[in-house]
Amino acid sequence: MPMNLLSTTPDAAGQPMTIAALRARYLDGSLTPAQLVERIAAHTAGDDPHRIWIRALTRDEMMRYADALASRDPATLPLYGIPFAIKDNIDLAGVPTTAGCPDYAYLPEKSAPVVERLIAAGAIPVGKTNLDQFATGLSGQRSPYGACRNALDPEYASGGSSSGSAVSVAMGLAAFSLGTDTAGSGRVPAAFHGLVGLKPTKGVLSTLGVVPACRSLDCVSIFAHTADDAQRVFASAHGLAQNDPYARAWQGDPGARAAFKGLRLGVPRASQREFYGDASYAQAFDAALDALRAAGAQLVEIDFEPFLATARLLYEGPFVAERLAAIRPFYEAHPDALHPVTRAIIGGAARWSAADAFAAQDTLAALRMQAERVWPEIDAIVTPTSPTTSTVAELEADPIGVNARFGYYTNFVNLLDLSALAVPAGRCESGAHAGKPFGITFVGRAHEDAKLLDIARAWLGEAASNATVTSVAPATVRVAVVGAHLSGEPLNAQLTSRAAKLVAATTTSKHYRLYALPKAASQGIEKPGLVRVAQDGHAIEVEVWEMPVEHYGSFVALIPSPLGIGTLELADGAFVQGFLCESLALDGAEDISAFGGWRVYRRSAAQLA
Amino acid sequence: MPMNLLSTTPDAAGQPMTIAALRARYLDGSLTPAQLVERIAAHTAGDDPHRIWIRALTRDEMMRYADALASRDPATLPLYGIPFAIKDNIDLAGVPTTAGCPDYAYLPEKSAPVVERLIAAGAIPVGKTNLDQFATGLSGQRSPYGACRNALDPEYASGGSSSGSAVSVAMGLAAFSLGTDTAGSGRVPAAFHGLVGLKPTKGVLSTLGVVPACRSLDCVSIFAHTADDAQRVFASAHGLAQNDPYARAWQGDPGARAAFKGLRLGVPRASQREFYGDASYAQAFDAALDALRAAGAQLVEIDFEPFLATARLLYEGPFVAERLAAIRPFYEAHPDALHPVTRAIIGGAARWSAADAFAAQDTLAALRMQAERVWPEIDAIVTPTSPTTSTVAELEADPIGVNARFGYYTNFVNLLDLSALAVPAGRCESGAHAGKPFGITFVGRAHEDAKLLDIARAWLGEAASNATVTSVAPATVRVAVVGAHLSGEPLNAQLTSRAAKLVAATTTSKHYRLYALPKAASQGIEKPGLVRVAQDGHAIEVEVWEMPVEHYGSFVALIPSPLGIGTLELADGAFVQGFLCESLALDGAEDISAFGGWRVYRRSAAQLA
Repeated sequence: MPMNLLSTTPDAAGQPMTIAALRARYLDGSLTPAQLVERIAAHTAGDDPHRIWIRALTRDEMMRYADALASRDPATLPLYGIPFAIKDNIDLAGVPTTAGCPDYAYLPEKSAPVVERLIAAGAIPVGKTNLDQFATGLSGQRSPYGACRNALDPEYASGGSSSGSAVSVAMGLAAFSLGTDTAGSGRVPAAFHGLVGLKPTKGVLSTLGVVPACRSLDCVSIFAHTADDAQRVFASAHGLAQNDPYARAWQGDPGARAAFKGLRLGVPRASQREFYGDASYAQAFDAALDALRAAGAQLVEIDFEPFLATARLLYEGPFVAERLAAIRPFYEAHPDALHPVTRAIIGGAARWSAADAFAAQDTLAALRMQAERVWPEIDAIVTPTSPTTSTVAELEADPIGVNARFGYYTNFVNLLDLSALAVPAGRCESGAHAGKPFGITFVGRAHEDAKLLDIARAWLGEAASNATVTSVAPATVRVAVVGAHLSGEPLNAQLTSRAAKLVAATTTSKHYRLYALPKAASQGIEKPGLVRVAQDGHAIEVEVWEMPVEHYGSFVALIPSPLGIGTLELADGAFVQGFLCESLALDGAEDISAFGGWRVYRRSAAQLA
Repeated sequence: MPMNLLSTTPDAAGQPMTIAALRARYLDGSLTPAQLVERIAAHTAGDDPHRIWIRALTRDEMMRYADALASRDPATLPLYGIPFAIKDNIDLAGVPTTAGCPDYAYLPEKSAPVVERLIAAGAIPVGKTNLDQFATGLSGQRSPYGACRNALDPEYASGGSSSGSAVSVAMGLAAFSLGTDTAGSGRVPAAFHGLVGLKPTKGVLSTLGVVPACRSLDCVSIFAHTADDAQRVFASAHGLAQNDPYARAWQGDPGARAAFKGLRLGVPRASQREFYGDASYAQAFDAALDALRAAGAQLVEIDFEPFLATARLLYEGPFVAERLAAIRPFYEAHPDALHPVTRAIIGGAARWSAADAFAAQDTLAALRMQAERVWPEIDAIVTPTSPTTSTVAELEADPIGVNARFGYYTNFVNLLDLSALAVPAGRCESGAHAGKPFGITFVGRAHEDAKLLDIARAWLGEAASNATVTSVAPATVRVAVVGAHLSGEPLNAQLTSRAAKLVAATTTSKHYRLYALPKAASQGIEKPGLVRVAQDGHAIEVEVWEMPVEHYGSFVALIPSPLGIGTLELADGAFVQGFLCESLALDGAEDISAFGGWRVYRRSAAQLA
């Protein structure tokens, strides 16, 4: 039964403790961080029947973080006074990190950079949470600190490996929590608790100070009640950490929005969907698809096989040896320190050779290429988060087999360098799991985290209008060229060398004039200048080229004064970025608009010469 | 003794057969491809004492390519009639590929895409060249087709593994050739023959149709007599191939140039330089550094240890198992088909486990991070290409040990995703190797191939003026913002989310005016428009932000009409890209220039409201 720490009436109906709700209380002065810490400590100091905590912080430990906020203005700290739980494979200064293995424990002097960032934003750590040992598992059962119990029904699997982090939020003891997610550990427990689970783009949340599972694949993940809350945490959590070999700057954008109506969602073909006979989940996914369709999304069946083949690589091939590499000296010195299931999995990796690993890397490169082919057709993929759930009893009977099923829709995501967001999708309506939460996951390309969060906000009805989603991080940009960049002209190679393709040869609308720039202004190459005019305009010949957005910056950076990139209107009324010229530079330049374009003008000039 | 196929006098002094010289002859009509093919065939049909060829093309085979050019205009094909040799691990349609292992041979139906591109550009293949078997080696000795002989002195090592490709160009039987380069195979043989050897950025020349050595590291390389020739070949050879999982679009630019004077060249500290006691090479490198300094370069000592540690990873650790993975089914079925030295190296890789491979991958990630720290201080690295050379007799006495020395300065390049260009640096003046060629290598970041070629052009005295080098692929771009992107303004996150840093708060020069745009024109956020004027201008407040160039494109793509990116003049007279507004949009807009900037205007407006 979730707590209601926001109410002063102990038996008030449980309302989720969201960041938004807490923030409103802090800003109106009806709550202080110290008051909230007292309420949390009253719960965490007692029994822990769900086995949430490997180490809950004491009242005094929490209060030191609250005290540090006393002099701060709540309005200036995005996570002022927000309590959060930390999976116990992520360092918090002064509290042991165990990774779920008592013999492995060490006492970190410094917090992980991602934890430091959250504390700097005002958040208050409340404890280190239970996990499948060494973050290996999706069940929540593989811990010597006790199998973690589902917050909604203790007979059911909590999901893992970030089990305690999910349960702490579901129980209302933290407003959000950090997990880690290599194969699905930040998504499966979200699904089993009706939470939002953000598995961000690899590398944008630093994994320094995190006990590695598969170091090149590990991600720090975020559990929250709402997409809005997850986005707030993400905004404070991401950022480059010094000395992190796997760090990447986030290239996403919280900017422009497009209609949810018409959003193209890729769905695995029916034959590629798997529920392991679970009619409750199969029916729930169909219902979710119906609801997405009703909300205006366009469902596009995609070939899911490259994704499934990648998922199989993660545990059925040599990639599991990355888990062994991560803890090898410890494992070899203390094999008996491991949970028997964990030992069976990680120890089994010793059978793979280095040649197997390189062959798998090669297979992965080919699968990645195949998987990327879906993206031109869709804006995101939607799948069940887990194909099924299970009771604790079922997991105890077959700990590896049942656990493996949970990863069917999650295992491929990090190998393919994708972003993913698990969200609630109501409850199962029928079958064995009737009444249990069901979750779906939106999957995007790397750096599309904000797009996924906006899709989720619309899906969850969080947005003021749920008819908007972010349309961000386009893979390509279109640019209209008018002079020396046209096909056959001297600077065309600046386009072709950037993998740009010609997509249209057309003209501007009839609102432009074209001038031949004086040579001095154009650095040795003859160039025209285009300008929009209020009257007496012409349609001017342009070519529209499309290039990968990651190359567009180096292209724009080459453009010399007085030229620049603005927005042009084309003959068909569409707008596209393209070359314009500062008006001031056209004083005294020859008006060549009547030629209708640069190439016609140049041919005429050549004939006259 | 190099041939002189460009002369009709058989005993004329040898002039290198460059692309530039051939092209001049084709364009003035004094030579035809068919004539050249006859001359080449007269040589390749005879003995092959240097063991250049595994399979020279016949006169008739070559003539078919020449005939296909009969109807073409030499001016329209960049490699019209240029003869080239192909390392025999790269497919040429209809000719067997052996990779130096007769039992491995197969007959490809299609040429490798990189070969197809060169033929489409007019080049004529002349033969498949000898190599260290499976491209494993730097000596040129490990071939069942015979040890390849150095073109300049047959008692000396040819270098490998692209041995025949280098010798064919050095002998004048091809104007350029293709090699492959995983550890140095495209550079070491260039050094031993006084040639230019371009090891391009990984992935920009497709490796489809190439027998893999280390598939994730392999590069197709180019041997030529001049940097100009290498650049011509590179320009025709690069381009995305369909279905190549390792393909990358080249992001370099053949654009702007900067002074060679002041070029910052990183040099390993004296204690980190290694010549294995070779006084000839040590002296030659000192002489090269003196010459670089005399030409105006600034030599900067760098910590070379991360590069050396990476180099050791390639052969002394599990990466060698990638070579086993590449040919494993063949190797396991036919272990005796391998050259004994090759078998010892590749077979030895079986001792490494998958966990070793993942641990090495992790080590590499850390080394890459450390190595990247040199780049802010330097424009390129310069090293000897090989630390020493050797006679064939010395190699035969210690085939693995002597070979390993050759890779001291080359082995790290592909693991660190760098570009490299081996160039001649005269001849050794003293010591045991007096009179033998000495070579240096310029190393740049990925996609800096054109910069390296321009440095080389200046170094080799090829440029019309040797005082220019390309200053390309800046890592960052500076952009001046004037309105809603300023610190604290609503769109500032578009900068910070792209890892942009504020580098200056200043003003424009006194030649601008600022307008408050009507709301309709600015999509809900209030924005100003800046425009340069001929008179009555003001200095307007701007912030200059610097961001990684790869993020700049997605930033520019967000800019709506009537705004755009052009070039602004700053108060100190410097020019920087920044926000400008179409003049037409300012009709009727409020002129707020007198406020001196957007924020002052907004504060005033707020006080009035």
